[in-house]
Amino acid sequence: MDKRPIGVFDSGIGGLTVVKEILRVLPEERIIYLGDTARVPWGTRSKKIIALFSQQAASFLVEKRVKIVVVACHTASSVALPDLRKRLKTPLLGVIESSAKAAIEASKSKRIGIMGTSATIRSGAWEMALRKEDPKVKVFSIAAPLLVSLVEEGWFNHPSTAMILKEYLSPLLKKKIDALILACTHYPLLVSLIKKVSPDLVLVNPGRTTALALRQFLKKENLQGKIKQPLHCFYFTDFSLQTKRNLERFADRLKNVKIKEVDLEK
Amino acid sequence: MDKRPIGVFDSGIGGLTVVKEILRVLPEERIIYLGDTARVPWGTRSKKIIALFSQQAASFLVEKRVKIVVVACHTASSVALPDLRKRLKTPLLGVIESSAKAAIEASKSKRIGIMGTSATIRSGAWEMALRKEDPKVKVFSIAAPLLVSLVEEGWFNHPSTAMILKEYLSPLLKKKIDALILACTHYPLLVSLIKKVSPDLVLVNPGRTTALALRQFLKKENLQGKIKQPLHCFYFTDFSLQTKRNLERFADRLKNVKIKEVDLEK
Repeated sequence: MDKRPIGVFDSGIGGLTVVKEILRVLPEERIIYLGDTARVPWGTRSKKIIALFSQQAASFLVEKRVKIVVVACHTASSVALPDLRKRLKTPLLGVIESSAKAAIEASKSKRIGIMGTSATIRSGAWEMALRKEDPKVKVFSIAAPLLVSLVEEGWFNHPSTAMILKEYLSPLLKKKIDALILACTHYPLLVSLIKKVSPDLVLVNPGRTTALALRQFLKKENLQGKIKQPLHCFYFTDFSLQTKRNLERFADRLKNVKIKEVDLEK
Repeated sequence: MDKRPIGVFDSGIGGLTVVKEILRVLPEERIIYLGDTARVPWGTRSKKIIALFSQQAASFLVEKRVKIVVVACHTASSVALPDLRKRLKTPLLGVIESSAKAAIEASKSKRIGIMGTSATIRSGAWEMALRKEDPKVKVFSIAAPLLVSLVEEGWFNHPSTAMILKEYLSPLLKKKIDALILACTHYPLLVSLIKKVSPDLVLVNPGRTTALALRQFLKKENLQGKIKQPLHCFYFTDFSLQTKRNLERFADRLKNVKIKEVDLEK
């Protein structure tokens, strides 16, 4: 048993979709979340800057004495994980490694699509993880940077969002993928629209598989919290109006949460 | 005569539309530009964070011994200018103050629309500046946060951009505005699309009027550079692929430019 909290960081508010999945399978754990809302988005930035911001975020969580750092941000998981592993002694869990197997299993044709930020797609991290599981898998990827802004504005069902989504998905559908990895924390909020645009696709939410992998890890290492009614703490680098508004969208069913502001640059 | 450079800062790359206007009327001045591409966009952030980032950017330029700091960023001009004025001894020029008069003159009906980022619109800075020029003017404003992302992706003429633009403009057009202030540095790249969507609107580009006000100020204070073939320097906090790609779009006709990377947080 280990009552220390689980640390989760993300470039902004999107990582709360991962927190939701974690609390669904691990309701007796305490979460310390860090969202870098003063510098979001990370997905359009260089590898160097993503690595620097990830390092600052992970260090903040380590100082809070978390038992594990979950990198909820797909961009950071794709680009910064090897570097973080070198620098940190605390166990580290990204959203890719534990999800590749689930994605392979979800696809019958073994033709898998990946939709993510520019940095995530450019990194090739998903392709590598999928091929490690199954060298014969066919992977097709598309950077879909505009979807983050559309979700942050709450345009989940807007005709423009549908139009843009269709444009992004079209080259993947032409390649006859049968499963799509939602390789950005914002995309689970677009699930109903994606299903409307392409009803036959199996959607893989890495937040879900990461939560399951986390449960397995805590059990194996005997690190379960077993805390009744845990109190969570969410830190944001900017608690702007946009953060507040999106907190309602992303964390609508999360309870016992304390919100704090923090400056990572100090 | 004063050969010191003119400092210009912006949240990212958009301020280069202002630099272009400056160099059009002041070809014998040297520009030091700072674009905070590691933390762009600012328009969705809180007043506190915008003030902090603006302060860091202005201090950087002052250390480079510029003769004036031009705040090309509309969000910073709307939210952080009074605070910057208190802290800096170097002359300071925002994009609003010098443009209100031009906007009033551009409108026959004195019904003026403003389109900008959320922080710019929320600040009410434009309304205040316009009413100071003409207390009877009718002002209608709309936050159009998605346009920045669409421009950054290069979707200037995309059907989705047209659809989203129409949606933003519709409430303003219903109010029968006859002039529209492009209150974000990215919007000048959408001029041809806006003209397609609404051909009768007079478009006011504050970058242009700011450049004219700057010329007037330098002349009055006898601070003109009179430098033949000046060499400019553009600093970016992240020289990512997105920055490189957008540099071609935003600075296509700028010459004699040196590019450097800088870390403002140190």
